[in-house]
Parts: sequence; structure tokens; C-alpha cells
Amino acid sequence: MKDFKYYTPTFVRFGKGTENETGELLKRFGAHSVLVIYGSDRVVESGLIGEILDQMDELGIAHAELGGVVPNPRLSKVREGISIGKEKNADFVLAVGGGSVIDTAKAVGYGLPDDGDVWDFYKKIRKPVTAVPVGCVLTLSATGSVMSDSSVISNLETGEKLGLNSDLCRPAFAVMNPQLTMSVGPYQTASGSTDIMMHTMERYFNREGNLGLTDMIAKGVVKTIMENTPKVLEDPDDYDARAEIMWAEALSHNGLTGCGGDGGDWACHKIQHELSAMYDVAHGAGLAAIWGTWARYVYREIPDRFYKFAVDIMDVEPSEDREAVILEGIRRTEEFFRSIGMPVSIRELGPDPDEEALNALADNCSRSVGGSIGSARKLFRDDFYNIYKQAL
Amino acid sequence: MKDFKYYTPTFVRFGKGTENETGELLKRFGAHSVLVIYGSDRVVESGLIGEILDQMDELGIAHAELGGVVPNPRLSKVREGISIGKEKNADFVLAVGGGSVIDTAKAVGYGLPDDGDVWDFYKKIRKPVTAVPVGCVLTLSATGSVMSDSSVISNLETGEKLGLNSDLCRPAFAVMNPQLTMSVGPYQTASGSTDIMMHTMERYFNREGNLGLTDMIAKGVVKTIMENTPKVLEDPDDYDARAEIMWAEALSHNGLTGCGGDGGDWACHKIQHELSAMYDVAHGAGLAAIWGTWARYVYREIPDRFYKFAVDIMDVEPSEDREAVILEGIRRTEEFFRSIGMPVSIRELGPDPDEEALNALADNCSRSVGGSIGSARKLFRDDFYNIYKQAL
Repeated sequence: MKDFKYYTPTFVRFGKGTENETGELLKRFGAHSVLVIYGSDRVVESGLIGEILDQMDELGIAHAELGGVVPNPRLSKVREGISIGKEKNADFVLAVGGGSVIDTAKAVGYGLPDDGDVWDFYKKIRKPVTAVPVGCVLTLSATGSVMSDSSVISNLETGEKLGLNSDLCRPAFAVMNPQLTMSVGPYQTASGSTDIMMHTMERYFNREGNLGLTDMIAKGVVKTIMENTPKVLEDPDDYDARAEIMWAEALSHNGLTGCGGDGGDWACHKIQHELSAMYDVAHGAGLAAIWGTWARYVYREIPDRFYKFAVDIMDVEPSEDREAVILEGIRRTEEFFRSIGMPVSIRELGPDPDEEALNALADNCSRSVGGSIGSARKLFRDDFYNIYKQAL
Repeated sequence: MKDFKYYTPTFVRFGKGTENETGELLKRFGAHSVLVIYGSDRVVESGLIGEILDQMDELGIAHAELGGVVPNPRLSKVREGISIGKEKNADFVLAVGGGSVIDTAKAVGYGLPDDGDVWDFYKKIRKPVTAVPVGCVLTLSATGSVMSDSSVISNLETGEKLGLNSDLCRPAFAVMNPQLTMSVGPYQTASGSTDIMMHTMERYFNREGNLGLTDMIAKGVVKTIMENTPKVLEDPDDYDARAEIMWAEALSHNGLTGCGGDGGDWACHKIQHELSAMYDVAHGAGLAAIWGTWARYVYREIPDRFYKFAVDIMDVEPSEDREAVILEGIRRTEEFFRSIGMPVSIRELGPDPDEEALNALADNCSRSVGGSIGSARKLFRDDFYNIYKQAL
């Protein structure tokens, strides 16, 4: 087992009607002037934003709003938020939405106390040393940003999609009411579930070898998603299934499923980020589209991990023909993705990149990761090209 | 799934040699004057205390020491710590040891900013509103106090052993080096493992019904203990096994294994506390001595939970004779306790209470829990008597 640090300071309030405690939580965490960030009109039309603003009014907490955050959230919106927040002397940023909204709020949190360009942090030109705290009211189970140290922002001017990891941005609190996710449609629900699974699987496929408790928790997260996603696709109002998925979301990306590992692989995330940057596809769906290809490309490097994954998580019968077991494990994972309406190839996902686009994707990915990435297998520019091509 | 809150702000630094980072962690968490608390001479003789004091000296952090904390830690020692800490204006309490030392440090943390009697908090006469922060360097895997909100203190004058739960005492940081537990002897190691298992099992046996992810994490914790305890009894220097147990310790009692449940049963803990208060027996060993009796006393009330426990965690073959499956699950748990050298009756534990003592234990337990306790089955004074008697 490798050494690790584990730090999840987020105060989680989970359950029915917990959004009614948002005002009290803001007060508890010292907010006086709050920038409220949201995305779709769904949260306005449902009355959620209005209720939360009312709570703040009652407690004498000042507020400003910024709506219109879109999936694969944009730097331009972050800059808009920083500008409004500075004008209002915001000392707290409240995200009401899913991962894109939370990631935007985190980026605004970095930018508010800083005089320079926030994109410098994402470009790793400068390191943030402080941040305005962020709280979340989660309305979509997907990215795990609700307890994570990461945010990912797209710069449409440069075509870059870059992530930044720092404990500074771990949310101070998270309001998690599974009922708020019941209006999320089937494609977005399935895409979110895929993202949740993948946050654990990225950490699972690493070179440290088989772990004990961490592997069992990883299995728990993946099984939870596989058992409950079909249930919510069948009945979107299934509270317990929505709750299981939402809790899995938080634990899958707060670090818990990586404790003792080597940090994880993360190549799939980076390969997918370029698809999202070029074609604006849903992140989880993009991951489903390439994972199987990636897995078949790298499994020979860490066969014990892929074998354990197949037998322990995908319930493949153990056999002396270990390669057959591994390949069956990969096939079952893709079969699950298909069963929840996810693509398992890039064309099924939507895009149909030609040779030039494939090369551009590979170049972009290589640049974005600084040449190479991967724990299971270290991948370089030509590997990215091969994976995009084989995943068509 | 029931609503819940989840809050584990403790910064965990886990791995080899991490005790060398203690000084830096104290600095990071704002300590200027530290009261260092420890128990046995083991931590002095090993040089650990000296190394940590040296780190503080190098960083200009003032310190005072309090040694001699014993298992079932005592109020008298807590008062001594508060007195020393006040004299030295301590703004941080560092526990170097296991659960007894950490619980003492937490109690001192409550007492330092308070002008009244700290025992008032444990008697629930007053509620603490603030506390001096606590950090831990863990040397024994057992109580889970390292990330928990609880501390349990014994008052020898009154014969009371009382717990106090509050987020105020969750440690600011925890240094967890599994190597520091290698010198712990077999009985104490096994007793610690039992305590770890029981923190999850107390939460598992509740009336909310079967959960998904939380149950899978609970299974992971119990399986981790059952797989790794025999390994460290065989080879005390098995790093990975020590590490798995240590990590299971933290997760078993930080709230994770109870998320979505009804809070848990906790009758076994209370029944055992009275044995410890009267006979000063090891907490984990005391739990092993009574658990099977308790389980057979209550299982009919929540048969689904006991059935799932038997099949899913104790690997009993499913059968239509559900009662036989349940009883086999209980038998296998006791068999495991025996296999690691733990008692499964009070006489095996050591004490041999006569009729008068049994009645005193039942009276004390009833008084300490305010009349009744239990989720699986609500137990009263005569139930406590029956369980003590049947567990003889």
C-alpha cells in the first residue's frame, strides 16, 4: 500500500428537503455576501433558486446571481462571475447545479481574491494560495465535484479544456437532496452514472497492485452505479436509487477510492476531454465511448488488476485462461454502458472525426497532458491517435 | 435511506515515516503552545515522543507533556491535563497513542477553554460550545477515535464510564503510520480489531433496512479486519496488513459506515462499558465476550439485517431456513473472535460476576443509558441483566 493523504472537509447534509437548510449553512460558514451560480433554467423554474434567495434574505445575507453555466463550463463565464463577485465583495460562492456549475464556482473562488488572470492557475503558470469558499446545492449526480479538489474549465478561444487540483477548492458544505435529481433526463442520468463509475475505475487501474479495503470500496461504488442506474431509468422518481447514485458520486471522487493506490491512470479522462473540447459532447458519454478501446489497448501491462476487476466486480467466472477472463470483464463493462443507453464508440457518441481531426485530437491531448499520461500504461501522442482511431 | 449528515474534516497523513511531518502539521494547523499527551512508556522508549518534541523545538512551538494515560482513560488524568494546559496557555492538544490517549486529549480540548467542570459535558449537564483543537499520532489501531466525534472517559470516583459526541472534537489532523503499531502485542491487536469490526457492526444492525453502498463499505471494513488480523498475529511486521487494519479503523468510526442508517444499535458498547468500568477489561475483548449473546437475544427483531449479514459478510450459504442461516452467521462471527484469541463469554474474558454483581452491572447500564438503548431491539434493565447472565 502506498502512502497517501486523505482530506475531505466538506460538511455533507444529505436527504429530503435539505435545500431548506442552505441559508443556515451559509451563515454557519461565515457568508455575508454570496455569489449564487447556476446553469439551466430548470433550477429557476422549479423555484429552487427563489427559495434559496429567500432564505438568504431572511438571514440578511447579501447576494448576486450568475446563471447560464453550460456543460463543459467556460472560462468566459468564470470571468463574468469573478467580475460580478468582485463588484459585490462576495465572500462566498454558492453553486446550485451539477459539476459544471460547481467547477465554475470553484474557478470563481480562485479568481476572487486574485488580481491576475484566473486562467494562469489552470495553465499552471501560477499556483493559487487562497480561495473564496464554495458551497453546493447539488441537482445532478455526475462529476463528484461536490467533494473533490478538482475543477475543469474550457477555454473556447484556445480550444483547451484544463483541470486544476487543490484542496483550496474543496467545498465547505454540500447540500445533497436526491429528489432534486429526479427531473434529470435519461441520457444525462446515464452519462452522469458513467462519470461516477469512471472516477473509481481511473483510480482502480494503477500499478500499485491489489489493495484490500480500498478495492472493496471501489467495488461498492461501481456495483452501486450498475445496480441503481437501470432502476432510475425505469422509474426516475425512485428515491432510494437516486440516493445511492448521489452518495456514490460524492465518494467516487473525494479521494476515498484511491487511498493506497498510485494516484490512478486518468488517460481516459484526458482523451475524453479533447473530444468534449472539440465536439462539446457529454463527458460521461464520451468516457463510455472510449473506455473499452483504452482497456483493450493497455490491459496487458497490469493484467492482475484487470483480472481482479473482471472477477471481483464484473462477476466473470475465474479461469486459468486469464486473458479470456479479462476480455470478458471489459466486454461486460461495455455491455453495461450499452444497457443504459451509452455509446461504446466515438461514432455512436456522435462525432465522426476524419483523419485530420483524429490527428488534431491526438496533438491536443498530447499537449494538454504534457507529452504523456497513464499509470496502467504510459501513453504518448501516437497512442492517443491509435485509441481515437480504434474507438471510432 | 434515511437522511444523514457526514462530516470528516480530519486531515489524514497515512504511511511510512509520516510521524516526521507532525511538527509541520502542528504549524499548518496554527499551534503555538502544545500539550502533548501519551500513555505507555512504549512511545517514550521508542524515541517517538523525543522526535516529535524535537520537531516542535525546531519550529519554535512551545510544549508541555502529560504521560501515563491508561486504557479506559480516567477523568483524573483529564483534569491534570486541563490544569497543565491552562498553565501553559495551550492552544493545541497532541495525542500520541491509541484511543485512550486521543479520548483524553479530546476531553482536555473541551476543558481548556471552559471555566467549569469538564465532567458536566459528559454528564450532559452542559454542552460544549468550543474546544481547543486536537491532533493525533496514532500508535494503536482500535477505537477509531482518530477521525471520530466521540470520546469516552471513566470516572473512578463514581464508577461511571460516559461518552460525549460532538463535531467539535474531530481531530484536525491524524498521522497514521502502520509501522508504529507493529510493537502492539497479539491480545491488544486482536482486541483492537474486534473494536474496529464492532464500530461497523453497531451501525449495521439497525431498523432502516438494507442499504446499498453503505452496506458494501461495511462489508469491506469487516472483511478487511477478518482477513488481515490473522496475518498480523502470524507476522506482527506485515506492513500491508497493519495498514489495512489501520485504515479500516479510521473509516469504521468516522461515520461512513452509518450513512443512511438510523444511527445504529450501540447496546453492545454500553453493555460492555459497564464491564470495563467494573473490571477494567480491554474494550474490544469485552465486546467479543458479549456480542454473540446479544445477537441471539435480538435477531428476531430485524431478521433481514441478520440474514444479510450472515450471507453477504459471513459467507453463509443462502437457504429457505432463514433462522438457521442467521444463527450460523452469528456462530461464524464468534468462531472468528475465538480464532484471534478473543473471548466469547464473560468468564473467558476474565470476570466471574456473582448474582449481586450481575444486578449491579444491569443497574449501572440502565442508569448510564437513561433507561433503554438499542435499535435492533430496545433493551431495558432486565434485558441487560439477561444478557450479562446468558453471556457468562
